[in-house]
Amino acid sequence: MSEIPYKIYLEEKEMPTHWYNMRADMEKKPAPILNPGTLKPVTLEELSGIFCEELAKQELDDTSRYFEIPEEIRNFYRMYRPSPLVRAYCLEKKLDTPAHIYYKFEGNNTSGSHKLNSAIAQAYYAKKQGLKGVTTETGAGQWGTALSMACSYFDLDCQVYMVKVSYEQKPFRREVMRTYGATVTPSPSMNTEVGRKINAEFPGTTGSLGCAISEAVEAAVTQEGYRYVLGSVLSQVLLHQSVIGLETIAALKKYGIKADMIIGCAGGGSNLGGLIAPFIGEMLRGENKYEIVAVEPASCPSLTRGVYAYDFCDTGKVCPLAKMYTLGSSFIPSANHAGGLRYHGMSSVVSELYDQKLISARSVEQTSVFDAATTFARVEGILPAPESSHAIRVAIDEALKCKETGEEKNIVFGLTGTGYFDMVAYQKYNDGEMSDYIPTDEDLKKSIAEMPKV
Amino acid sequence: MSEIPYKIYLEEKEMPTHWYNMRADMEKKPAPILNPGTLKPVTLEELSGIFCEELAKQELDDTSRYFEIPEEIRNFYRMYRPSPLVRAYCLEKKLDTPAHIYYKFEGNNTSGSHKLNSAIAQAYYAKKQGLKGVTTETGAGQWGTALSMACSYFDLDCQVYMVKVSYEQKPFRREVMRTYGATVTPSPSMNTEVGRKINAEFPGTTGSLGCAISEAVEAAVTQEGYRYVLGSVLSQVLLHQSVIGLETIAALKKYGIKADMIIGCAGGGSNLGGLIAPFIGEMLRGENKYEIVAVEPASCPSLTRGVYAYDFCDTGKVCPLAKMYTLGSSFIPSANHAGGLRYHGMSSVVSELYDQKLISARSVEQTSVFDAATTFARVEGILPAPESSHAIRVAIDEALKCKETGEEKNIVFGLTGTGYFDMVAYQKYNDGEMSDYIPTDEDLKKSIAEMPKV
Repeated sequence: MSEIPYKIYLEEKEMPTHWYNMRADMEKKPAPILNPGTLKPVTLEELSGIFCEELAKQELDDTSRYFEIPEEIRNFYRMYRPSPLVRAYCLEKKLDTPAHIYYKFEGNNTSGSHKLNSAIAQAYYAKKQGLKGVTTETGAGQWGTALSMACSYFDLDCQVYMVKVSYEQKPFRREVMRTYGATVTPSPSMNTEVGRKINAEFPGTTGSLGCAISEAVEAAVTQEGYRYVLGSVLSQVLLHQSVIGLETIAALKKYGIKADMIIGCAGGGSNLGGLIAPFIGEMLRGENKYEIVAVEPASCPSLTRGVYAYDFCDTGKVCPLAKMYTLGSSFIPSANHAGGLRYHGMSSVVSELYDQKLISARSVEQTSVFDAATTFARVEGILPAPESSHAIRVAIDEALKCKETGEEKNIVFGLTGTGYFDMVAYQKYNDGEMSDYIPTDEDLKKSIAEMPKV
Repeated sequence: MSEIPYKIYLEEKEMPTHWYNMRADMEKKPAPILNPGTLKPVTLEELSGIFCEELAKQELDDTSRYFEIPEEIRNFYRMYRPSPLVRAYCLEKKLDTPAHIYYKFEGNNTSGSHKLNSAIAQAYYAKKQGLKGVTTETGAGQWGTALSMACSYFDLDCQVYMVKVSYEQKPFRREVMRTYGATVTPSPSMNTEVGRKINAEFPGTTGSLGCAISEAVEAAVTQEGYRYVLGSVLSQVLLHQSVIGLETIAALKKYGIKADMIIGCAGGGSNLGGLIAPFIGEMLRGENKYEIVAVEPASCPSLTRGVYAYDFCDTGKVCPLAKMYTLGSSFIPSANHAGGLRYHGMSSVVSELYDQKLISARSVEQTSVFDAATTFARVEGILPAPESSHAIRVAIDEALKCKETGEEKNIVFGLTGTGYFDMVAYQKYNDGEMSDYIPTDEDLKKSIAEMPKV
């Protein structure tokens, strides 16, 4: 038995007191978000109409390095944080690799993922502003679940517009949200103008994320005392998620471990951006070097096959425009089971880091992701979410390379969540019926051509 | 902020090295289990035909106080243990109680419950004996899931007979087991003689736990290199589960906390027996006093309304007879959502402690249990299993009593698992459609009258 425990837990008093804002250390900053009407940088005033004021400030601030985590949020974090940094001894043994593998496990809370880190912050600022409640959309349900928990804690109304097909196919996710007191409405609904319009135009439609966003935004701006909140992509979300990376780096330092490679799955970029933040900070300040890999599904390859340009963040085109690696907001990814990675674009911050070659990216296919998930589950005990399993895939690939070279590389990856609500996907895999899908160049050409010309 | 953290984590080196066998400290021991054919105490030889030899030895040993936990098992424990002892600050605040509430959380592993503590031990001894595999039955699926994980770790074949109605209604549980490599067969099946017979006699039957046990036992004794394993009731299981109580008492001592009251839910007794073991030890040795409460569902009240007598452990009547508090093995509890508490009897050890008045018991009704579960979830963040929520109910009741009296009681309860696979029950509750059911005296008289006359 090595001296490094299976699970490195920081003490509560070693938890971060501040979030870290990578943008402050970037010489070339991410491009500003634009008002979709004027195509000029969005002002604080404009943004505060949709988002809570404090969050709008965080969104626009690319110079403050640290933001103090309010005590109320730190108290909530204490219920499920610090999260463990686990040494994957059993996986290493199974792979017979000299590499040392570590994973930061964010699934040890009822929402089942890292989303709670930002949900509680957004709920807190909404409460502090004296709002009655917040609205949001959810597809697979991880974000909606996290937000429901956060709102329940601060006694805030939570209205979730859930893509109708998910609402019907994932009744358990829906019930978790209801248990936490949220109102869950299948989208398109008859609650909003945009919902009624879409229902009239496409009777029997099962909805889309784009439509759910539009409904949630309309619900926020038409109700007194409500604002809209979002679980990924935004810079404010990456800021809150930096708690993942800050704990990781502190835990590694506690045991004198120097990470060589850091791997994270990337959909909108909230987990990856949070995990790598302080490591990127050290690189930007010239203190250290790390190999950082973003892993995306081959079915939705925004970094590896997208373009770097201004695009709509949502299919409904109501949100600000962001400069990002994107496949075009009209791109519709195939029915990949990693619902959290089915986003056409990528956080502006992560996009800019990628463009500056501070991080690299790889795409992986679905069946090989579930191979990795199953291998991991059987030896490490945790049933991983399909999203997280993208990072596992690359971690295993890298560990197997080390087996060839004999290198004792320290590999750290983010295990963002658990797969309890993804058993339909596992069943497909167990039955040998999982399929892979890679968009053709023609597919991508089409959606990219439809992007706004900014 | 108090000096006691939200979560008390022991370090890995503080984990128990030995399981504790309460029976060794009991002056009056639990009555021996009997061979159902001869009605004489079961011999080691007889028991070793069904169970692994080392486990059979543990079952019959009521004098050895400690059993060393083999290193291989301790290594597995390190992947998810020590489990946290959580100070329920938020629940205390919500209840506005002077009581201090602590819970030992056993749901932070993929099987979602404490069952894994014994599953890994049983799989280890099967592997050590050179067996090919093990067979078992599962109803709701917690035990089957835990055993699948344990067998996957030791590369052991795992054959689970799952009550057909659960197999069909809980496909996600089934898929978790399959992901861990287990063969899951709906029972009654056509694999076994007893299964074929039942299928012929009752075409279209959706099965029962009794039938699944009979199939699993038949599968074990008719296949070369297989044994049968069981997840509760047995003294060996309570022995393995003592790790819960040992960690709890160590964590309390680390912070100088003296528990006043210990509360656990009780179905077959595995969680309760494990949680209270070292506390009972201190009581038996005259070192300390604790108020210990077993909580059972009003729909299946073996301690509060049963009789203390020899009875069959299984409905199929193939297992040894045990002296226990029981409602009679022909008692069929109503469709309570806490599947893990729907057992007609109670562990012999727990029964004897109850008979000696070392512990007390209470029964609670389902709707009030879900009231407690929802209150807990909303403030403490964890979505509790229906079984565990029985303990939450009584912990809340006691904390509210303290509010009346002003007493700063230290209340400790066992939070055995999570409710991710129980959302159908939560949905019923959320929709206001949950019903309570209490058996009539007539119901109980009938099943008790059918018990064997030993």
